[in-house]
Amino acid sequence: MSTENTHEFRVPVELKRSFVLINHGPTVLVSAHHAGRNNVMAAAWNMPLDFMPPKIAVVIDKSTLTRELVEASGELVLSVPTVQQVALTNAVGNHSGHDIDKSSVAQFSFGAAAKVSAPLVEGCVAWLECKVLPEPEISKKYDLFLAEIVAAWADKRAWVNNRWVFETQPNMRTIHHMAGGHYLTAGEVVN
Amino acid sequence: MSTENTHEFRVPVELKRSFVLINHGPTVLVSAHHAGRNNVMAAAWNMPLDFMPPKIAVVIDKSTLTRELVEASGELVLSVPTVQQVALTNAVGNHSGHDIDKSSVAQFSFGAAAKVSAPLVEGCVAWLECKVLPEPEISKKYDLFLAEIVAAWADKRAWVNNRWVFETQPNMRTIHHMAGGHYLTAGEVVN
Repeated sequence: MSTENTHEFRVPVELKRSFVLINHGPTVLVSAHHAGRNNVMAAAWNMPLDFMPPKIAVVIDKSTLTRELVEASGELVLSVPTVQQVALTNAVGNHSGHDIDKSSVAQFSFGAAAKVSAPLVEGCVAWLECKVLPEPEISKKYDLFLAEIVAAWADKRAWVNNRWVFETQPNMRTIHHMAGGHYLTAGEVVN
Repeated sequence: MSTENTHEFRVPVELKRSFVLINHGPTVLVSAHHAGRNNVMAAAWNMPLDFMPPKIAVVIDKSTLTRELVEASGELVLSVPTVQQVALTNAVGNHSGHDIDKSSVAQFSFGAAAKVSAPLVEGCVAWLECKVLPEPEISKKYDLFLAEIVAAWADKRAWVNNRWVFETQPNMRTIHHMAGGHYLTAGEVVN
């Protein structure tokens, strides 16, 4: 469940393998913290950007509170939600932290990250702790943020020997937003 | 099959809906053309960047021939391969056009795009014709290319009323690279 405490299953992922956590294109949750405020939003528009040091790219709209917190702190976390967290993902994606406290519209808990101030979203299947690479012109022009992954984690029930094993954990499959709150789930593996 | 002629099923997609074609994070094929040469590579690292005008972002390594062709022409096509094109995707992803003619290691055909010189890869399920947004510093520093979608197409067997219907077309499901030639396929829909 989205509020499940997954600490006991959370294991570190080597930085050089951390790109694999989002290589298959899941929708993610972007969280950030600044001056006592946390927020989280949904972002289908994310991707790996480099292997080592590992980097990611993510689009964060100017209208969002998360954007303000990311720009103020220079840090963010990408949490990878599961098929059990569709309602949570839609809820934090369809409301702005400027208007409401998102904990009033979605069931979730924040947990502490290891290397950044931004919080992890509990119950997800992977987490990428990131420090923003300062590229203010790119961010201003395209709402695009580039960041270095400084720590990475996965739930060991679905991540074995540095690869996803969703076939054994259907409840932990990642979700891939099409549009309008409709998602494709991670399906069978082909080689 | 990867060499299937899909012209009769190819329908235009409204630009304002074209982001949906890759919103769920599929691995794509990037093709380009310049001065009589075509090439194509695989790219898991791609995402939508904006709605209207629609834009995409894609990582294209400096070592690739496709990079040279994209930089020389300012144009590229993203073709979205299906579960029937895993071998093709791996083959064009694991060889460089600098070393070989990729048609010698993979079964595929190029078709003509409508608005750019870069070719479409036949047998795919969607195609985004793109003009590169000149951002040479970003490309040089991060191997990152931003481009505007100027025409978009989908195979009407899997794209109905501006949404994917893979549940009716399992052979046309998109593929999502994890690592090492292992892909997750697009699975069931959740709302």
